[in-house]
Amino acid sequence: MNTTQAQLGAVLAAGGPELTRLLESTESRLAEVAEAHGAELAGHATDTLLAGGKRLRPMLVFLCANHGDDRLVSAAAAVELLHMASLVHDDVLDCAALRRGRPTVFARGGRVAATATGDLLFSRAFAELASTGDPDAVRALSQASSALARGELMQRADAWRADVTPERYLERCRLKTASLFEASCRLGALFGERPALAGALGRFGEQIGLAFQMLDDVLDVSGPAERTGKPRGTDLLDGTVTLPLILALRTDPGLARPDRSLGPDGASEICDRIIATGALAQARGEALGHVAEAKAEVEALELPAEPKRALELVADGVVERYA
Amino acid sequence: MNTTQAQLGAVLAAGGPELTRLLESTESRLAEVAEAHGAELAGHATDTLLAGGKRLRPMLVFLCANHGDDRLVSAAAAVELLHMASLVHDDVLDCAALRRGRPTVFARGGRVAATATGDLLFSRAFAELASTGDPDAVRALSQASSALARGELMQRADAWRADVTPERYLERCRLKTASLFEASCRLGALFGERPALAGALGRFGEQIGLAFQMLDDVLDVSGPAERTGKPRGTDLLDGTVTLPLILALRTDPGLARPDRSLGPDGASEICDRIIATGALAQARGEALGHVAEAKAEVEALELPAEPKRALELVADGVVERYA
Repeated sequence: MNTTQAQLGAVLAAGGPELTRLLESTESRLAEVAEAHGAELAGHATDTLLAGGKRLRPMLVFLCANHGDDRLVSAAAAVELLHMASLVHDDVLDCAALRRGRPTVFARGGRVAATATGDLLFSRAFAELASTGDPDAVRALSQASSALARGELMQRADAWRADVTPERYLERCRLKTASLFEASCRLGALFGERPALAGALGRFGEQIGLAFQMLDDVLDVSGPAERTGKPRGTDLLDGTVTLPLILALRTDPGLARPDRSLGPDGASEICDRIIATGALAQARGEALGHVAEAKAEVEALELPAEPKRALELVADGVVERYA
Repeated sequence: MNTTQAQLGAVLAAGGPELTRLLESTESRLAEVAEAHGAELAGHATDTLLAGGKRLRPMLVFLCANHGDDRLVSAAAAVELLHMASLVHDDVLDCAALRRGRPTVFARGGRVAATATGDLLFSRAFAELASTGDPDAVRALSQASSALARGELMQRADAWRADVTPERYLERCRLKTASLFEASCRLGALFGERPALAGALGRFGEQIGLAFQMLDDVLDVSGPAERTGKPRGTDLLDGTVTLPLILALRTDPGLARPDRSLGPDGASEICDRIIATGALAQARGEALGHVAEAKAEVEALELPAEPKRALELVADGVVERYA
């Protein structure tokens, strides 16, 4: 068991049997959604949804709600469907063969099948959430979806550029990742017992989303590949300039700029040079700063000790992966 | 003015000032949606939405509603957004440079921008409709969206196959085109004065959708290019086997099979041979059969003469394009 799983185990224990039951209901709902659209799409969508993943976003929905009704499961399924939809389309754009160690829809079915599967998952995300009949909730998911699209564009616009600023990097993290974490927390609050805390819990989600993405970018440089499930330096290979490189370039100006001719060995060498500058510790420190901000949001809330503890465990968990 | 425009002019006249006002509100709504997601997406989405198109689906929403409230404009914007989303992604898959004589998002912005723009339009379609707070409506759009994805997959699965049956072709038309026409009519009925007629008006929409797609496929063979805005035989060039070819192969078994080595001149030759078999008249006859079924649905409804006449004009309009 790695640190993440141990951490999520602690969250599950803190959440009690109701959290486990809600997560199981979400799995059933996702399986039903995947199977309802003809044999070919069912195959691709089922594979995608059942390939696992930590279900961190559904978990945030439930933890921010405390108790709630069936609408919570719809919201949890919706955020996971939107997340999956964006991954499936990202894999098409990256021509990615593997995700979480399994062949992508793109690899198995090709461009057309993967585009159609992503489109279907986008539509189903909104259909799930709309079943709650709450326009505010749909608006929250729609804002996240718009942010995902803008983040994707920003990432491609900034590809291969050595002059990306930390501020611009942070904005990209907000669009690509934090917006959906924020929506997950907000939806949980809206449909649970804490609608008045939707704003604060949304900010909590945004902060852990930022930390989550920053740590992902650290792990891409640090590896080890056996733990992260992908070779080191994949961001360098596809031109995605992240905080570790941005920081390293400040202290090691001779560091190679991102370059389309880079191969896996070259990427691995740049990773070592980035590590030598101390940029990873600095980037991890920034991520921890966002975790601290997230925990401060929770601390300030008028909530009993137990739900506060569960939210803080999640906040710690996003940066303790493979630590 | 071509026949379509004349026909739509007659529909507008039959619909009176309220129809014109509703269509104008839809344009404003679409423009607002396009502009609200950052400069780059705004550019692509605005170009896409304002590039025109007949707004046939919004028109169906309004004509099936008679009167109604603001939810009608949301529904009309939603069906048009979903239609546009699917066109933008189709253009990515086809690497299409032009649509309606203008550069596609794919041509202007590349694969990433076009995928993100389509994703955004999909999301916005559901967000618009969800603003009505009606889960039945969202379900209707979601079914259409699922059908679009399945139709796209079916078309690619059947590409370059000379053994596509007329039944399978019809099913593809239903998924790719008729499902969204059906949803448009159903949404109009639900949000207008005729919720009890949603089923019958949905069937009306499905039949004119089938006729619309069939006539599109006839025009791809018949041209003329000056009127259709694209060279003859584009379906043959990308391997899409449609009713004219299916029927022609029955009477002219020596007709060349769809083939990846086909060029524009070869496609034009096959078009001439298809025309020589009389298959176009037969396919047009099938389309007219669906128009007749659509009109029979309307005729059987307990409605005043004027709205019946407007719906019948639309039904006739879909097969009188460039006739």
